Amino acid sequence: MGPFRFNSDNYRKLLERYIATEDESSLYQAEQFSKLSMQNNISPEEIINIHIQSLKELYPDLPKEIDSSLNFLLETMISYGLAYQEFQTLREKQG
Amino acid sequence: MGPFRFNSDNYRKLLERYIATEDESSLYQAEQFSKLSMQNNISPEEIINIHIQSLKELYPDLPKEIDSSLNFLLETMISYGLAYQEFQTLREKQG
Repeated sequence: MGPFRFNSDNYRKLLERYIATEDESSLYQAEQFSKLSMQNNISPEEIINIHIQSLKELYPDLPKEIDSSLNFLLETMISYGLAYQEFQTLREKQG
Repeated sequence: MGPFRFNSDNYRKLLERYIATEDESSLYQAEQFSKLSMQNNISPEEIINIHIQSLKELYPDLPKEIDSSLNFLLETMISYGLAYQEFQTLREKQG
């Protein structure tokens, strides 16, 4: 893998590798991914969205129950996304 | 269902109902749940954790790939959880 970049393709590749290997280094990459995504002002519900899309690309026959459950999770993250935007505004004010 | 309360049993029940019905009112309950969980200082990665536990209780034979994928998602949310704690501290300072 080349230099680490923030994009959904990269998330899918990291996720795929973690599912196949369950190695700690992939989990470390997940952590790095989220730090980078925060630097890019990506909100938590966008991460959930990228996760859902990645999972659907990896498993086109994802069981309907799993698909529904992820929609539900996405909905719970929307309020957190709004709080996260407010946090960014507060942090900018603090300079 | 009685008065709305914040706890993981309630999350599981709401999730179960949404998976069965996919109705808008369950999604609305998801939104209410997250607002309440924010009032209770629950961080986003704790929501992911509650989601994982609920899904495992509803589907004890959850495919290994799905289980692994959720661990990966949990890891990406840890940085957001730290930011969320910082946000709460900032907001308290602002009074």
